[in-house]
Amino acid sequence: MKIVIDMMGGDNGLRATIPSTKTFIEKHNDLELFLIGDINKLTEFKKYKNVTLVQSETVVKMDADPLSALRETNSSLMVGIKTFLDNKCDAFISAGSTGALLSAATFKIKRIEGVIRPGLITPFPTLIKNKKFVVCDLGANTTCTKEELNQFATMGSIYYKTLFHDVNEPRVYQLNIGTESEKGTTVNKEAYILLKENKNINFKGNIEARDPLYGNVDVLITDGYSGNIFLKTMEGTAKAMSKMIKDAFKKNIFTKLGYLLVRKGIVEMKEKMDYKNVGGAMLMGVNGVVIKAHGSSDPKGFLSALESGYKLTSVHIIDKFKENLNR
Amino acid sequence: MKIVIDMMGGDNGLRATIPSTKTFIEKHNDLELFLIGDINKLTEFKKYKNVTLVQSETVVKMDADPLSALRETNSSLMVGIKTFLDNKCDAFISAGSTGALLSAATFKIKRIEGVIRPGLITPFPTLIKNKKFVVCDLGANTTCTKEELNQFATMGSIYYKTLFHDVNEPRVYQLNIGTESEKGTTVNKEAYILLKENKNINFKGNIEARDPLYGNVDVLITDGYSGNIFLKTMEGTAKAMSKMIKDAFKKNIFTKLGYLLVRKGIVEMKEKMDYKNVGGAMLMGVNGVVIKAHGSSDPKGFLSALESGYKLTSVHIIDKFKENLNR
Repeated sequence: MKIVIDMMGGDNGLRATIPSTKTFIEKHNDLELFLIGDINKLTEFKKYKNVTLVQSETVVKMDADPLSALRETNSSLMVGIKTFLDNKCDAFISAGSTGALLSAATFKIKRIEGVIRPGLITPFPTLIKNKKFVVCDLGANTTCTKEELNQFATMGSIYYKTLFHDVNEPRVYQLNIGTESEKGTTVNKEAYILLKENKNINFKGNIEARDPLYGNVDVLITDGYSGNIFLKTMEGTAKAMSKMIKDAFKKNIFTKLGYLLVRKGIVEMKEKMDYKNVGGAMLMGVNGVVIKAHGSSDPKGFLSALESGYKLTSVHIIDKFKENLNR
Repeated sequence: MKIVIDMMGGDNGLRATIPSTKTFIEKHNDLELFLIGDINKLTEFKKYKNVTLVQSETVVKMDADPLSALRETNSSLMVGIKTFLDNKCDAFISAGSTGALLSAATFKIKRIEGVIRPGLITPFPTLIKNKKFVVCDLGANTTCTKEELNQFATMGSIYYKTLFHDVNEPRVYQLNIGTESEKGTTVNKEAYILLKENKNINFKGNIEARDPLYGNVDVLITDGYSGNIFLKTMEGTAKAMSKMIKDAFKKNIFTKLGYLLVRKGIVEMKEKMDYKNVGGAMLMGVNGVVIKAHGSSDPKGFLSALESGYKLTSVHIIDKFKENLNR
């Protein structure tokens, strides 16, 4: 399995990518890795026979505009994309600028035949143990047409079936501000009609943002703007509540004792709701497993993104899209 | 203080409104109330001298379209609005259909002079004790123009200053999918320019959905679609996490003991994050204190909406809008 890793991207750069990449290498024995970055700072990887270090000069800024990012050919992002293509790799993982990664991947790695526009997709936890739901688009496309939303539903269902085997016909819902068919924007209303007619999916209707965590949804589709609001509100609320719980336990000796008694359950909950474990989002629709890790990834978060890339490659997700998309 | 209460609206109808209205009456001694509904079911209120019962025949369906709701003149909603106008009342509170309430209030009670479009606003909790932030629009307008967003900022700042006295120049942010000025939709980008030039507000820029809970925002403005996604994602995540905490404490005798030790802090947190305590949203911009209680309000939630109506009337919020809006 050939994987390219952008070692320089993200808010934490090498502090996040070096320790996680080491753990990743030592966990799997079927990897061939290409690490992109300042190779003078990556010398500790020289001891691994299955690692190739590739020099890059610059790092695309987190708020770079996509077009100038494409022209920055010595950046870890663009050198990474080139390495990916030259070596016919399976996966590319980066915590760098979302906009730049999306443009570079779409423009250079290209879309799978028949795909209108790629979208970011990732699994989320639910109240039910081991049950996940997936959301697309999480922010690749600020606005979407009804055809794009409809295709996210088809691709999202393939993604869901490939990754999880608990449901044959994943239940697809459209994120909306009400459940009735005529709710939401003009695009929502028109997409609803297309979704209902789409024979490749099991469309169940509109759903409000408060409900998917309860486990009744498999695939949630939305434009990238609302998807991003959904993702980040969940992240912020979960983080804030974890902080409140922590404070409640810290108050005095009795509450500290209380914490010792419920520690396991609380840690499990925090782990479940921690966005760092979400593992980065896949850019679904391009011709390779391209993973966007969270910009503020720490080692744990970046490792989780690396593991997503590994998992999606091992289940042959790209082949599944090609087989099923244009049936 | 003259307040009209729609006793029939909402998923729980009289089950929610009767007990909360009783508590409300007994708490305040400056009320003159008009209770709208099936008066045969409201006989227990006959003993109060400051209560007038007004008969209505139908209840507007929660998913009614606004125009047919306007024509349903015997509904508790429309009888309520008429009672409000005939008696020159201060506040009107309903847990009924959002769309119907908005149309009826805008059409019959009318907008304050200069207001382009009313928007739903309500305070939210933050990690900082007693510190709230307000969000507008929460779902009255699926899409908004840049001028409407800019006016929400002006009105939201007046609302914030009137309700909370901790900040003289409330910090206004635009909800967006990134912090840079050129992020988001075309309307976001154009609104950013207007907001920056608006001399009546203290505009601080764009903010992502994960951040407002931390207490650095006073007024968050957004179109009703994204605002509704934000509200409901927060509600759903908080509810799901409270459920997880409950489950963690229920596991065995030791975790139950642990709960006894931290009970106070956990209850405080759940109270803080419970949407039922949010108290209903004000339809900001119409010529009266119109409060939309949560459709699924229980007695506690509806009481909280009644208290919002009381509070906003006692701080003379409508006069403040009139004084400050067209300066």
